[in-house]
Amino acid sequence: MTDLAGAVLRLLKRRGQTLATAESLTGGLIGELLTGVPGASAVYVGGAITYATRLKASLAGVDEQTLERFGPVAAPTAEQMASGIAQRCTADWGLSATGVAGPDPQEGHCVGQVFVGVARPADGFVQVVELRLTGGRDEIRRGAADAALELLQQTLGMEHAGPGVED
Amino acid sequence: MTDLAGAVLRLLKRRGQTLATAESLTGGLIGELLTGVPGASAVYVGGAITYATRLKASLAGVDEQTLERFGPVAAPTAEQMASGIAQRCTADWGLSATGVAGPDPQEGHCVGQVFVGVARPADGFVQVVELRLTGGRDEIRRGAADAALELLQQTLGMEHAGPGVED
Repeated sequence: MTDLAGAVLRLLKRRGQTLATAESLTGGLIGELLTGVPGASAVYVGGAITYATRLKASLAGVDEQTLERFGPVAAPTAEQMASGIAQRCTADWGLSATGVAGPDPQEGHCVGQVFVGVARPADGFVQVVELRLTGGRDEIRRGAADAALELLQQTLGMEHAGPGVED
Repeated sequence: MTDLAGAVLRLLKRRGQTLATAESLTGGLIGELLTGVPGASAVYVGGAITYATRLKASLAGVDEQTLERFGPVAAPTAEQMASGIAQRCTADWGLSATGVAGPDPQEGHCVGQVFVGVARPADGFVQVVELRLTGGRDEIRRGAADAALELLQQTLGMEHAGPGVED
């Protein structure tokens, strides 16, 4: 399903804005969905796959203290992944996903606990949504990727809703 | 098909070695294939999606001069993406893919021209393979991801082939 990715890319292209991603449990799936759409390069610049916790700091710019205090699966981490990757990639928007895909729980977090984040550093905007997804590993990863893209779509829709907006 | 990704992860896990990726035209697909395998985190640390050319320098460590001289779709660029991302992620191995997925040619490169690279910075090893893939955008992206994983699999097999090696 590239419809959601395509819709997000169209919304951003119309605004002349760019997007970067920082992915943990999705492991590149959000980027893969976006770049599956021809012409994605007008909007999507790339980002980081921060699968190991330490890469959330070194590649996406999450504070070491945040990781020590809250761990890799937490709202503040998802926030900083989204804002950090946008800043490091000089993109208008940052999108993030971190959570537990399973099969095993991780550091006290249940399988399916996921945080997706969206940030626009230029005006300090950042929002995180916590999800409890069910299903197998693939379903949880796919659900997290879709939830991240939906969060960005909703944010863009709310920000610029009006009679002039159409798809 | 996660068999290829699974085979690469098993080979690396047996050696106690880690892997990072730098992806351009595949846009996260290599990471997605690797992290689709349960237990991938023992080997795969993450990496960068360097879709925009400038991110090949800022996130993966490719020399600006290399990008100016050879462009984003070139053997030296694929080499430096692989070695650079391994170094930035402190991983034993780096794997890269850059090329033209289409639908349109890019800066004089035909649709389907792809370079995949593998590097092991500790001993200065780096190898790049050039491919001419056919098919649509999805097939070229998938073919590039598989070719990158196969290159690593072959490299690991050649390096450590012997009676003690089994899958």
